[in-house]
Amino acid sequence: MMKKALQTQFLSAEGAAKLVRQIGLPQVMQGIAANIHQDFLHWRAFDKSARVAAHSQDGVIELMPIADDRTFSFKYVNGHPKNNMLHGLPTVMAFGVLADVATGMPLLISELTLTTAIRTAATSVVAARALARQNSRSMALIGNGAQSEFQALAFHHLLGIEEIHLYDTDVEATAKLMRNLQANPDARDLRVSAYASTREAVRGVDIITTVTADKTNAAVLTADMIEPGMHINGVGGDCPGKTEIPPEVLRKARVFVEFEPQTRIEGDLQHMPADFAVTELWQVLAGKLPGRTSDTQVTMFDSVGFALEDFSALRFLQSAATAQGLTQALDLIPRLTDPKNLYQLIQPHQSTNHPTRKSAATVLA
Amino acid sequence: MMKKALQTQFLSAEGAAKLVRQIGLPQVMQGIAANIHQDFLHWRAFDKSARVAAHSQDGVIELMPIADDRTFSFKYVNGHPKNNMLHGLPTVMAFGVLADVATGMPLLISELTLTTAIRTAATSVVAARALARQNSRSMALIGNGAQSEFQALAFHHLLGIEEIHLYDTDVEATAKLMRNLQANPDARDLRVSAYASTREAVRGVDIITTVTADKTNAAVLTADMIEPGMHINGVGGDCPGKTEIPPEVLRKARVFVEFEPQTRIEGDLQHMPADFAVTELWQVLAGKLPGRTSDTQVTMFDSVGFALEDFSALRFLQSAATAQGLTQALDLIPRLTDPKNLYQLIQPHQSTNHPTRKSAATVLA
Repeated sequence: MMKKALQTQFLSAEGAAKLVRQIGLPQVMQGIAANIHQDFLHWRAFDKSARVAAHSQDGVIELMPIADDRTFSFKYVNGHPKNNMLHGLPTVMAFGVLADVATGMPLLISELTLTTAIRTAATSVVAARALARQNSRSMALIGNGAQSEFQALAFHHLLGIEEIHLYDTDVEATAKLMRNLQANPDARDLRVSAYASTREAVRGVDIITTVTADKTNAAVLTADMIEPGMHINGVGGDCPGKTEIPPEVLRKARVFVEFEPQTRIEGDLQHMPADFAVTELWQVLAGKLPGRTSDTQVTMFDSVGFALEDFSALRFLQSAATAQGLTQALDLIPRLTDPKNLYQLIQPHQSTNHPTRKSAATVLA
Repeated sequence: MMKKALQTQFLSAEGAAKLVRQIGLPQVMQGIAANIHQDFLHWRAFDKSARVAAHSQDGVIELMPIADDRTFSFKYVNGHPKNNMLHGLPTVMAFGVLADVATGMPLLISELTLTTAIRTAATSVVAARALARQNSRSMALIGNGAQSEFQALAFHHLLGIEEIHLYDTDVEATAKLMRNLQANPDARDLRVSAYASTREAVRGVDIITTVTADKTNAAVLTADMIEPGMHINGVGGDCPGKTEIPPEVLRKARVFVEFEPQTRIEGDLQHMPADFAVTELWQVLAGKLPGRTSDTQVTMFDSVGFALEDFSALRFLQSAATAQGLTQALDLIPRLTDPKNLYQLIQPHQSTNHPTRKSAATVLA
């Protein structure tokens, strides 16, 4: 009998936050970015599909599965823009699972609400390393909600961005982002300024990151704001009817995507004709197709979030959280002395149903 | 602000087993069968899709989502026929999630390994009530593995089956099933006998249940075994390349299915031409189409397992396990004082990230 994991591990919301506090956000972002880069280089090894989405009046719930020949993963994630206002809940909540392809055993259930923000920013940096001008130093950050700190700090720590221009329709959100960045002892070299409009914020920057949340077809950027050589990191347009960047801007740029069939449906790309040319990022990373080819070219990463990035993030969490002793055993799958005898679990007068059970673990809640 | 659940609940493998031991297997099967019947009557209210399957050499991992306008659910489930032999693990392991459509909040994560066996048997009974002859009293049970006790007891307690004929290629499995049924004080009226072949086991019975597990195209039944008036409850053919019942048997029967697009791919139906007529069970339950129309007709329920049955089972578990105090709070989604300030979770020098956190719950593992 081969030795296989017989126990599902759990990484709680607090466990993941503790992991980040213990080893440092820059280190976590770098670790996840490295996994994303590595997994994108093995693109063809993955069984990929567009995510499964259940749309409703106020939002969407999605399942994002992916697998290679050893590991299966999926993420559960919602997007409900009115959650803050109506329910005091985050717009985006998520959790994920890693499982063993050989047995189907779920190996890890992990929070991914915090982690989604981190992996999205890490993906943005992996793309910008290949697509933004060398020596990019300034970035506009349009949309200052839950994900904005992670974008700012990823570009600062991992790409060398020194100056960030902020704009949000909600001035409270911008004030919160300013406070958080200024209080961060690791980001003392980062200069941050708030602007009165997107137009003013984006003027002269090397990179524009848009990360807005409304479930509408918005036009956060217009073509006249785009200067030669800019890289646009478009993060917030990520489902049908939810876009940020209008066709006139896409037409000015070379557009790069994660997984083309998904981005055609969900990205800012959804408003473009089916023959509008795009390049999958993995092909640039693998050296198969060029990324940016001149310093005056406009590049755009139409990022919608792809299952492989969560796979990469879950791999990182599994390894790092286990090393830090932050995972806990979860009694999700029954352990059976005879696997054909599932009935033993409920047999009357059976005193113990978990013969190999050793100890109780505490899950904080 | 509307009052919404802010905490995910967890029902462990041991919690679900305890629930069944406390309130009784017949009662749990009856409760789940009632939910399945009720949810099938609201068939059109559900957003249905065929499950998402990741096939590998040794098995398959599937996600089975479904939603109405209030509740989203999905099941994670694998099927790895060699798990017993190679790894000492069950062939089928599963867990599931109920979530709030209005907010995307995951409300319940529950074990479904035990529950899948129960809900499959409950579904078989819901179908047999509509399709088998009235006053059916005898059943052959071909395949005596992990699910067989649940099929036997569901048909005994919920449909009035008094006599069951057993056959399995593995005599140990049959012996285990015999022992389990004979030791059950609630099933003293049930007569159980082992047979030396499928042919002998099925002779003269009212219902044939097949629940075998090999990932092959097997022919457990042949046409000459089928007598007028029999109902065939075909449970084990449930993915491409995994069938039990050959075309010659299907051609003798009126065939009923759960969700036709899925069964055409996964069921014993996969070997039939696309125009081979089948009837969806919900239409029979809703009185829109006839079920059995004579006592000599052969009926077959080509059951592959549909997401709605897990939705129904999860609804039952949520209600019953909460009432019995068997669920536990799970720290899966972070709670934020300001939902736009996800960064607060990892802010250096922040002492508490969970301001409303009250107590620690113990998850047995």
